[in-house]
Amino acid sequence: MIQASLPLEKGAPVSDQDYAPWLALGRIKGVGGVNFKKITTRFADPTAIFRASPAELAEIEGLHRDLIDNIANFADWAEVDDEIKRARAAGIKMIPFSAAAYPSRLRAIADPPPLLYVKGEVGNDDRAVAIVGSRSASDYGRRIARDLARGLVSFGFTVISGMARGIDGMAHESAIRAGGRTVAVLGCGVDRAYPPEHEMLYRRISESGAVISELPLGARPIAFNFPARNRLISGLSLGVVVVEATEKSGSLITASLAAEQGREVFAVPGEAGASRSRGSHRLIRQGAKLVETVDDIIEEIAPQLARRGGDAARPSACTLPENSGPAARQIFALLNQSSLQVDQVIEQTGLAAPQVLQVLLDLELQGFVSQAPGKIYRAEK
Amino acid sequence: MIQASLPLEKGAPVSDQDYAPWLALGRIKGVGGVNFKKITTRFADPTAIFRASPAELAEIEGLHRDLIDNIANFADWAEVDDEIKRARAAGIKMIPFSAAAYPSRLRAIADPPPLLYVKGEVGNDDRAVAIVGSRSASDYGRRIARDLARGLVSFGFTVISGMARGIDGMAHESAIRAGGRTVAVLGCGVDRAYPPEHEMLYRRISESGAVISELPLGARPIAFNFPARNRLISGLSLGVVVVEATEKSGSLITASLAAEQGREVFAVPGEAGASRSRGSHRLIRQGAKLVETVDDIIEEIAPQLARRGGDAARPSACTLPENSGPAARQIFALLNQSSLQVDQVIEQTGLAAPQVLQVLLDLELQGFVSQAPGKIYRAEK
Repeated sequence: MIQASLPLEKGAPVSDQDYAPWLALGRIKGVGGVNFKKITTRFADPTAIFRASPAELAEIEGLHRDLIDNIANFADWAEVDDEIKRARAAGIKMIPFSAAAYPSRLRAIADPPPLLYVKGEVGNDDRAVAIVGSRSASDYGRRIARDLARGLVSFGFTVISGMARGIDGMAHESAIRAGGRTVAVLGCGVDRAYPPEHEMLYRRISESGAVISELPLGARPIAFNFPARNRLISGLSLGVVVVEATEKSGSLITASLAAEQGREVFAVPGEAGASRSRGSHRLIRQGAKLVETVDDIIEEIAPQLARRGGDAARPSACTLPENSGPAARQIFALLNQSSLQVDQVIEQTGLAAPQVLQVLLDLELQGFVSQAPGKIYRAEK
Repeated sequence: MIQASLPLEKGAPVSDQDYAPWLALGRIKGVGGVNFKKITTRFADPTAIFRASPAELAEIEGLHRDLIDNIANFADWAEVDDEIKRARAAGIKMIPFSAAAYPSRLRAIADPPPLLYVKGEVGNDDRAVAIVGSRSASDYGRRIARDLARGLVSFGFTVISGMARGIDGMAHESAIRAGGRTVAVLGCGVDRAYPPEHEMLYRRISESGAVISELPLGARPIAFNFPARNRLISGLSLGVVVVEATEKSGSLITASLAAEQGREVFAVPGEAGASRSRGSHRLIRQGAKLVETVDDIIEEIAPQLARRGGDAARPSACTLPENSGPAARQIFALLNQSSLQVDQVIEQTGLAAPQVLQVLLDLELQGFVSQAPGKIYRAEK
């Protein structure tokens, strides 16, 4: 180990030239996510492999001889430079693994991409849930995808999906319409709108959220790319909701990757015998949580977020932080007097329902209020 | 403890007069199943309470003073005699707790009835599964109830239900049409066909299976009776399948009694947001097994039956018992040569699919064959 930890803040490239080795990393045959992770255990700055001697490379545990040769012989620097220029021209950001903006949840998976191409804005997607499902969705599936996406947005979550036809498209579309943030992870270059009928959706996602890919610009949407893409969908998310899935659906791959990555797996039921629900039903039998409404998702995810929030030092449970907004103060003061059902909070504060839901979830995640069955909230004292 | 164990075989009444104290037991206010069970722990012959002194009755742990008075003061023997005459005239059998014909699974529950009234034949319902659900079933629910009942019959199971409108009626009806045995447990006297539109179904069930109740003849179908009735539906069964259930459905009571009694609980999913499936979905979230087809039921129940079968002494796993039929011998010989998928067994034996399924299940339950994923059967050696 050359260096103990990654210089994440400092590691972000400052000039276009700095991006070159990161893009090269993504182009070398065999530097998939797992081999890349091996490299990061040896070199705090993975781009150091291009300056390393064959002997140093041979010291990386588990790295195949052929791969070491591929690294040593990499010569396509002109193509890499050209790609950087094209990315700049197309307003596409490049986020190397070492950059602070690289999603921290994704950095922690077993096979993270060396570099992400982003069309749009990389935001704080700490609260993110994926909605995925069948390309040939039923009206029922589309309706549920819509309701869940809307619901997640109302709780301040980012909706992640794969921009495919059917459930994916509906999830993105509904999140945007509800004024929320949505992120599409593509199985092709981020400069391609695929499938073609989602070109308008692609533009709207990149304007209000982000379209992400690990593949070089211009990479074609071949079937081979999709399973690898799915690990990014789950890797970016706290949990994955499968809305409709046949028994051979790619969504089942996403669900299984999610489970491997320690993410929550959710599945929406359908009628027994409906082929589009067979995959979801199998997931439920295997332990996925059955989801009817967004509440079923929040119920499972909130304690997880709260635990993490609870790790941060906070002076006292009964004093809100200085930077709390007026709505949070008003609601917290109210709950300090008595426990209230969510509808009572809305009524007594006169605030809009989405805002109350959002504030209550924030307070719950920060450990200032807790929720009892029947959506009754009380202040923690 | 006056006697160590119940003289089950000898305990069955031999003359009408012997039934009288059993019917009386059922008529005494306060001798519900639990108090009756307490009595059986003190008196090997529970009807002995009518000959016992108040001091002896007072020794029964947990029996309330009022109840002891009710027993001591019971005087409606004329009514009891009249009821016995009416039962005889109507061809209704009376099965006291001590009779060998009393269902053994029911005998083991915490609150067994002292006496069962039976219109029809008490059979060997060792393999029995209950199908219950909403009275206002959807077409979807009815279809699934039908398919599951048919499927259970094809595996040689008795279908238990409550003869209510909707799912219950469909389950009975479909079991009969498939040539199987079905048992209806009523929340009124067994001499009443309730609901009225099920009068024809009532007759057909009692002709080909049995209609059962613990309530005296003529007892009316009041709402109060139904939860108690539900414990018999689950008590008679290895598992309970809830097909459709609203959030306030009585089927959820049956499911919860089933869980308390250690029975398997199964639930059929429906679309998210369908009010008739909300109860089923809640059960699944609580751990009920999601059921799409009868295979999901058998998969869960077969190992249970097999374990029990395995307790019985049998000479050797590779020799079938003397009384095995030709089909069992043929299939077992085949599987002794190589493992086969169920369709291959059907093809190679030339036997009908239902017969093959039935024989394979029998062999599996007896521990002669085992099943691997993909419905592949192999002989145990």
